[in-house]
Amino acid sequence: MGAGENARAIDIRNAFALGSAIANEGWVVLTGGRNRGVMDAVNKGAKASGGLTVGILPTKDRRTISVAVDVAIITDMGSARNYINVLTSDVIVACGAGGAGTASEIALALKSEKFVVLFNSSKESRAFFKKISGRLVLEADSVSKTIDIIKLLLAKMRKSSTRTIKRQT
Amino acid sequence: MGAGENARAIDIRNAFALGSAIANEGWVVLTGGRNRGVMDAVNKGAKASGGLTVGILPTKDRRTISVAVDVAIITDMGSARNYINVLTSDVIVACGAGGAGTASEIALALKSEKFVVLFNSSKESRAFFKKISGRLVLEADSVSKTIDIIKLLLAKMRKSSTRTIKRQT
Amino acid sequence: MGAGENARAIDIRNAFALGSAIANEGWVVLTGGRNRGVMDAVNKGAKASGGLTVGILPTKDRRTISVAVDVAIITDMGSARNYINVLTSDVIVACGAGGAGTASEIALALKSEKFVVLFNSSKESRAFFKKISGRLVLEADSVSKTIDIIKLLLAKMRKSSTRTIKRQT
Amino acid sequence: MGAGENARAIDIRNAFALGSAIANEGWVVLTGGRNRGVMDAVNKGAKASGGLTVGILPTKDRRTISVAVDVAIITDMGSARNYINVLTSDVIVACGAGGAGTASEIALALKSEKFVVLFNSSKESRAFFKKISGRLVLEADSVSKTIDIIKLLLAKMRKSSTRTIKRQT
Repeated sequence: MGAGENARAIDIRNAFALGSAIANEGWVVLTGGRNRGVMDAVNKGAKASGGLTVGILPTKDRRTISVAVDVAIITDMGSARNYINVLTSDVIVACGAGGAGTASEIALALKSEKFVVLFNSSKESRAFFKKISGRLVLEADSVSKTIDIIKLLLAKMRKSSTRTIKRQT
Repeated sequence: MGAGENARAIDIRNAFALGSAIANEGWVVLTGGRNRGVMDAVNKGAKASGGLTVGILPTKDRRTISVAVDVAIITDMGSARNYINVLTSDVIVACGAGGAGTASEIALALKSEKFVVLFNSSKESRAFFKKISGRLVLEADSVSKTIDIIKLLLAKMRKSSTRTIKRQT
Repeated sequence: MGAGENARAIDIRNAFALGSAIANEGWVVLTGGRNRGVMDAVNKGAKASGGLTVGILPTKDRRTISVAVDVAIITDMGSARNYINVLTSDVIVACGAGGAGTASEIALALKSEKFVVLFNSSKESRAFFKKISGRLVLEADSVSKTIDIIKLLLAKMRKSSTRTIKRQT
Repeated sequence: MGAGENARAIDIRNAFALGSAIANEGWVVLTGGRNRGVMDAVNKGAKASGGLTVGILPTKDRRTISVAVDVAIITDMGSARNYINVLTSDVIVACGAGGAGTASEIALALKSEKFVVLFNSSKESRAFFKKISGRLVLEADSVSKTIDIIKLLLAKMRKSSTRTIKRQT
């Protein structure tokens, strides 16, 4: 997740590198799907490394879809689609400081008990989200650190879902 | 908007007083509609002063509806209903610091270009939301201050909508 | 529920009379909220008899709201708002034959185990919906017949919810 | 689209064969994603032929996802997700008569101006949907006929979207 129209050059470069690294791990990239800013760049990075990309679009206007989205899901639900973005993801990464849209995705993720990695976020963002859901918020300042954190989180989730399954039997 | 299960006693007292004051102005109270915390208290305050209350519920479970909600809208859309909450409101008030749910409503409101009043919020919350959308964020530390700000905002919105109508003719 | 842009004159007349009769019973009218066809007419009828009207709007465009809607809920979710319409209603009335939008509301209502009254529907509509959910579909050819059926259904629902409560204690 | 819990054996056999044929054409299969009836069978057929499958799930309960879904989109929006199903699809196929859920998808598709193929539908269903949106409704009684119709529709849509692009330049 990250800024669309107002993304900084550094966030776009990081997003491209992150998308590429995610694809190299064999993971699927999921974004808001539009042809703008961080969304667009992370998809392009993923495709450059042969990954699969999923985009959850806010409107029916097909001209707004990033060319680097393989599976475009059309919701026509505006920012309500942000809830689908976070529920569908295993781990949420906020790339750069982002604006109100990114903030809503981080908050909806935390509300849904999902882990969020703040990659190159602002100090106000880190202070706020750590305060409301410290346990679920992690920080990274590079692509490789972000990938390492995701690996740890996935391992942790796999273990806890094994526990859940065991408890059911 | 405000905390549900984890609301502080001070937030619940403020929410009741705020609901009552809103009803005295003849305004409609809109909340997430559940029988918990700030939502429940602001509705009860509004009914104590004879106001009209609207609740946008996240699930179909009718036992979770606040008894003080007059018009209960059932969405079965989980936290996606937070988007409807903010789009339907003229002004959003976050009462108390709140948690991730409240944060998502503030962020969705700012994304939708709605004014948000942070009433007795945390300093981290104020710093974060002022940073991402300073123009739309206001602060209050009492019910009467909150009501005064809403009045100013409604007057401002009425003026700007008159301008819009004039431009169209 | 009923046709918007393509409503027939007879459906609009019936909708106005139905809205008025619903308000006279002290019930709340809920529609899709737009200023078109059956939605608009049933709200106007309800207001003519001093009723309360709720509209669940598909878009953010406030110019499309019926002037006779008291509580306008803004969803920005297109036809997904039809699901909210039926979940929020105690009984659904389809006024006139309607088009695809009305058909989706009838189907979503039946899927959610809600009673539907087909008032002056087409024979194809009656045959289809009776076939898929006969138990939940009722027919009426006048406003007074529609009101009588709603009364019976509300009595039945009240009884069954008493049973549910008893079973829980 | 088609019945979940109450699917007939013939519909499940047809769904499997249809999924396989769709995958052989190189098309993506999109369904409601649950591990029941027509949804489950069409996904299994598609995977048997090496296709890509997308499922739009109504709830957060991951145990309800069909094992044959590659990309699972979690909406937590109940039947409102039916709107996403039809908006995201190029062509909608209703396999078998279906129930109220399938009827809502057909109706939402027609409301959104999407083509719908009724494959082995009931005569009441054909009569009803032809009446409300005749231009968009097609009928098929075999998998090969369904595939032929989809090919024609895709060719038609491609031509009309070329026209749209030309008009814009």
